[in-house]
Amino acid sequence: MRQKVGIVGFRGYSGAELVRILARHAHLEPVLIEHRKDVEDHAARRDGLACISCTPEAVLAAGLAGVFLATPADVSMELAPWMLDAGSKVVDLSGAFRLRTPENYRRWYKEEQTQPALLAEAAYGLPEFCRESIKGARLVANPGCYPTAANLAIKPLVEAGVIDRQAGIVCDAKSGVSGAGRKPSLKTSFCEVTENFSAYSILDHRHVPEVLLTSGLEEGEFSFTAHLLPVARGILETIYFRTSVKRPEDLTEVYAKRYAGEPFVRIWDAGHVPDLHAVERTNRCDIGVKLDAATGRAVVVSAIDNLVKGAAGQAIQNMNLVLGYAETEGLL
Amino acid sequence: MRQKVGIVGFRGYSGAELVRILARHAHLEPVLIEHRKDVEDHAARRDGLACISCTPEAVLAAGLAGVFLATPADVSMELAPWMLDAGSKVVDLSGAFRLRTPENYRRWYKEEQTQPALLAEAAYGLPEFCRESIKGARLVANPGCYPTAANLAIKPLVEAGVIDRQAGIVCDAKSGVSGAGRKPSLKTSFCEVTENFSAYSILDHRHVPEVLLTSGLEEGEFSFTAHLLPVARGILETIYFRTSVKRPEDLTEVYAKRYAGEPFVRIWDAGHVPDLHAVERTNRCDIGVKLDAATGRAVVVSAIDNLVKGAAGQAIQNMNLVLGYAETEGLL
Amino acid sequence: MRQKVGIVGFRGYSGAELVRILARHAHLEPVLIEHRKDVEDHAARRDGLACISCTPEAVLAAGLAGVFLATPADVSMELAPWMLDAGSKVVDLSGAFRLRTPENYRRWYKEEQTQPALLAEAAYGLPEFCRESIKGARLVANPGCYPTAANLAIKPLVEAGVIDRQAGIVCDAKSGVSGAGRKPSLKTSFCEVTENFSAYSILDHRHVPEVLLTSGLEEGEFSFTAHLLPVARGILETIYFRTSVKRPEDLTEVYAKRYAGEPFVRIWDAGHVPDLHAVERTNRCDIGVKLDAATGRAVVVSAIDNLVKGAAGQAIQNMNLVLGYAETEGLL
Amino acid sequence: MRQKVGIVGFRGYSGAELVRILARHAHLEPVLIEHRKDVEDHAARRDGLACISCTPEAVLAAGLAGVFLATPADVSMELAPWMLDAGSKVVDLSGAFRLRTPENYRRWYKEEQTQPALLAEAAYGLPEFCRESIKGARLVANPGCYPTAANLAIKPLVEAGVIDRQAGIVCDAKSGVSGAGRKPSLKTSFCEVTENFSAYSILDHRHVPEVLLTSGLEEGEFSFTAHLLPVARGILETIYFRTSVKRPEDLTEVYAKRYAGEPFVRIWDAGHVPDLHAVERTNRCDIGVKLDAATGRAVVVSAIDNLVKGAAGQAIQNMNLVLGYAETEGLL
Repeated sequence: MRQKVGIVGFRGYSGAELVRILARHAHLEPVLIEHRKDVEDHAARRDGLACISCTPEAVLAAGLAGVFLATPADVSMELAPWMLDAGSKVVDLSGAFRLRTPENYRRWYKEEQTQPALLAEAAYGLPEFCRESIKGARLVANPGCYPTAANLAIKPLVEAGVIDRQAGIVCDAKSGVSGAGRKPSLKTSFCEVTENFSAYSILDHRHVPEVLLTSGLEEGEFSFTAHLLPVARGILETIYFRTSVKRPEDLTEVYAKRYAGEPFVRIWDAGHVPDLHAVERTNRCDIGVKLDAATGRAVVVSAIDNLVKGAAGQAIQNMNLVLGYAETEGLL
Repeated sequence: MRQKVGIVGFRGYSGAELVRILARHAHLEPVLIEHRKDVEDHAARRDGLACISCTPEAVLAAGLAGVFLATPADVSMELAPWMLDAGSKVVDLSGAFRLRTPENYRRWYKEEQTQPALLAEAAYGLPEFCRESIKGARLVANPGCYPTAANLAIKPLVEAGVIDRQAGIVCDAKSGVSGAGRKPSLKTSFCEVTENFSAYSILDHRHVPEVLLTSGLEEGEFSFTAHLLPVARGILETIYFRTSVKRPEDLTEVYAKRYAGEPFVRIWDAGHVPDLHAVERTNRCDIGVKLDAATGRAVVVSAIDNLVKGAAGQAIQNMNLVLGYAETEGLL
Repeated sequence: MRQKVGIVGFRGYSGAELVRILARHAHLEPVLIEHRKDVEDHAARRDGLACISCTPEAVLAAGLAGVFLATPADVSMELAPWMLDAGSKVVDLSGAFRLRTPENYRRWYKEEQTQPALLAEAAYGLPEFCRESIKGARLVANPGCYPTAANLAIKPLVEAGVIDRQAGIVCDAKSGVSGAGRKPSLKTSFCEVTENFSAYSILDHRHVPEVLLTSGLEEGEFSFTAHLLPVARGILETIYFRTSVKRPEDLTEVYAKRYAGEPFVRIWDAGHVPDLHAVERTNRCDIGVKLDAATGRAVVVSAIDNLVKGAAGQAIQNMNLVLGYAETEGLL
Repeated sequence: MRQKVGIVGFRGYSGAELVRILARHAHLEPVLIEHRKDVEDHAARRDGLACISCTPEAVLAAGLAGVFLATPADVSMELAPWMLDAGSKVVDLSGAFRLRTPENYRRWYKEEQTQPALLAEAAYGLPEFCRESIKGARLVANPGCYPTAANLAIKPLVEAGVIDRQAGIVCDAKSGVSGAGRKPSLKTSFCEVTENFSAYSILDHRHVPEVLLTSGLEEGEFSFTAHLLPVARGILETIYFRTSVKRPEDLTEVYAKRYAGEPFVRIWDAGHVPDLHAVERTNRCDIGVKLDAATGRAVVVSAIDNLVKGAAGQAIQNMNLVLGYAETEGLL
């Protein structure tokens, strides 16, 4: 007997990935919640799944233990309050509840955060660093895809004090096209993307504040540029900084200690780094280190699947924590 | 009546591109030089072209004004001396003659430079900075693809003194697969590259010394990582540094002044940056700038077609200079 | 002094290709005609080009010898009459004027043909078969991309009587995504197309009647299916039929005779067939033949670049004919 | 307690897929068998797996219930005899044991079949048609990827007598690059495949006899051409024939009846056809039908994942049958 969990936005790439992963989950059974039918259906993926309308009555009647909001931020702000009132825990995949204060949200999203109380209440869903607060939360703000890869790579080094913060940290990030969502646009059209590569949101991406809030870096210390890769899925970030440690093993050891026992972070041997294929369709973040000891320059490569550890997989990891299941259920 | 120029390595990607471009050249007529038939033929591209064997007699008999060596470095070191003796000017597309001293070559290429006299004699073929020495040269070392994009973006800023060199410059470089050559290997197999992205030669790529020699940066100031993009052609480099200039226009102006009249460098309006499609199959380097004035962090994006401005196009630009033709002939 | 020719729809893929090719045309100078700004601009491609508005006055004032309509069929039917009245020859790249009778148009396009007189007047722009009528025409209906590759491969065999028509001809056609135009849609989004392949318009594609009209085949004799390839450009058609000829050379000879002197059709040696790269960015149609003599089954492979011989290149070939220039001008 | 099964050729694409799928199998535990280390390792995929050498002693000591041979045909002929002697059931993924007679093998593979007794003994591993003989077999010849998609689409129609065999059946087949194996070659290099599409083995592919043997068609009735798609995985076949049935539903009904209860064949509603994404990473064959009733021309589209239903997935389906497990174990 599996508990029911709802999915709003099941036609999008993250939503479809939720459906795909939950198909093998021992304790959770997905229920599709029809909100707006604005993109064509992945017909095949709906086979045999229950589908209810997006009203408090229907959600209540369905008895959903939890709901995943794979929706734009404004829709999440509209739905989250009454989903919670209906007694469902909520894991929100949008940016609506990630930035702690309405001011910070307004600055980066150029819109109002209309649910400041929920914003204050929400737990930030990066289990490797916020596990306990997630367990007790009603509402979890699932992290952005870029910040997931960045924070898992950067925060242990900041904590260990091995980064020369004054010289600055550069994070050059590359993402597959599914990160832009399923809504058709010229920028994500096949002919514009294939055999192409482009930088965007240079130094002002709205995912930057998530890295600052979590890692503790100051804005002037952290330079971030996003790029669009001609692949469907995957994020790889190349992170540059200066350090006084003398051996690359000193850096991998910082990670090994911090992530001992963590099921979804894998540290590569010093001098080796992951590529996108290494993490494809897994919920892992893989991290590798290269150091030029003579000059104190270091490079860390961090890779995730943006639709799994960067979205649906981590959301299920969070729902597992919230509902009291094994954190890895459905994700290995 | 066109002058004859030879091409060794015409089956490789750079060699085939030389043939393609020269087909429209008003003054130069390509002659294929058969060196080693170790890769299959682009049969179609040989239509109607003369083909001679790679011997001093044949080259002498053919009366070649110039020869392009689109060959590995060891082959270039073997062929260049007698090509020059046969009276042909040589533009070499390998790394054999780029690094000025045998010691520097040995350090980065892990092999001996067996022609130190020619190494000392060779002009470095970056016309935007070395035009006069190229014009008088017998032997031109065509620059590496990565250094072409990097030096055109970095050197004007170093000359203008607007970079905080102590904080370091990061160059995160991404290249299409043709940069690895046409010889089959697992790393360049379709299934390994498609839907993938990977970093390689982190901090120790053999193209680094070309940037140091040309730009004047010190090794500890310049961090470079190469990446393999799932595209056939194109290089895009994202360059990070700190600066005290206050407006992005101050940076674009540095470029505008330095490159006034240059036919193959195009500066984008401040805040806008090129992608790979912008330079595809052109001999241009496109450069764009983004600045966060509040914190003094700047990003420059530099893009070329690795087979044109990064190889065959620039080689023809150099041959034009060496043989006294209009620098842009065949390249617009 | 070049003659001016206008381009309506210069932001689309065919329109941009017209601009690209005309940049090297000795006698024609492109003038952009702004009709509807419904897709974002290829800013870079407009550099230095004149742009006028789409009114009879502006077109008249500009003194355009010819106009290319790279527009949807309904727009072409609206613009063609007054463009002709303004004294410009028109090459239309849409399907508006290809099908001879309003009835045929209605059947396949499910819409009215509102310009039956022009429909009757228009020359069909397949120069290899309709050269003389094109030369004298005011209005040329540029052929569809699929029919161009199909007719060039099939018609000589039908004329020569070497096909067993009763057994039927199968044409399995595959096209790059640019054939669907530049307007964003889910079907042409990167994530839907990459690592995918799909059949569409099975047995009822609107390009079918062009093949029937030109080749002389009956509808029941010709089975056509279109497929979407995960590439930007290129069409390859694999054509199956039965024949009583005994040697593949008998088939290549039919082509060789028919296309002797044709600059844009290339026949491969018997047993060899072209791929997309063989014709990329050329105005050629390449054709190859394989025969199983024992059983009388033959396969012909026909390849073009859908944006060149399948659209812009052939349109310029037609404009050259209409305006009296060398047919190959700008296209070699 | 899982039973051990060995994998020879675990570094290839089919072998790696066997490892991936078996990771979730309830009853089988993969053991890697090191035969020849001629391709680089997928290091990550070996994590935690036992690896033994390829000798009778080691295989015997390991107590393998079954062995998968993901090897070239000549290696399979060498290994299969002693694997069977060591008491392991064998599922062979090569073509070595598929063609029943040495004469047929010699004709299509241009080599000797050196194990005629095993050739005669082997069961053909297409469970939907040969289930009972597979269950009792020691040695199963796993079908080729192309024939799997072709036979599942064609054989029910031949059995039902709805195909006009005299007019011939055309099967235009397209495959992803992983079908060519992991050994580097120019034909499968990224730059040669991307933005390209090509036909090969026109009318003489070695998979043809598998279709003839299974479907019962005569050689002169069946025309097959293979094509290389620029995707990593997937096969789509477009099949053309004539029929006297009058409604497309008559054809889907033939399939529905034949495949009632089959877990791995899915028939689409009449008029709809699958694409590659529909079957990606599944063990299914999806089949759709389109009919032009007026002229009696029909098209069937059949799609599989070449590495799953076309190789590793079907091999595990066969091993499940041979070892007495649920046929779908590990495959849903």
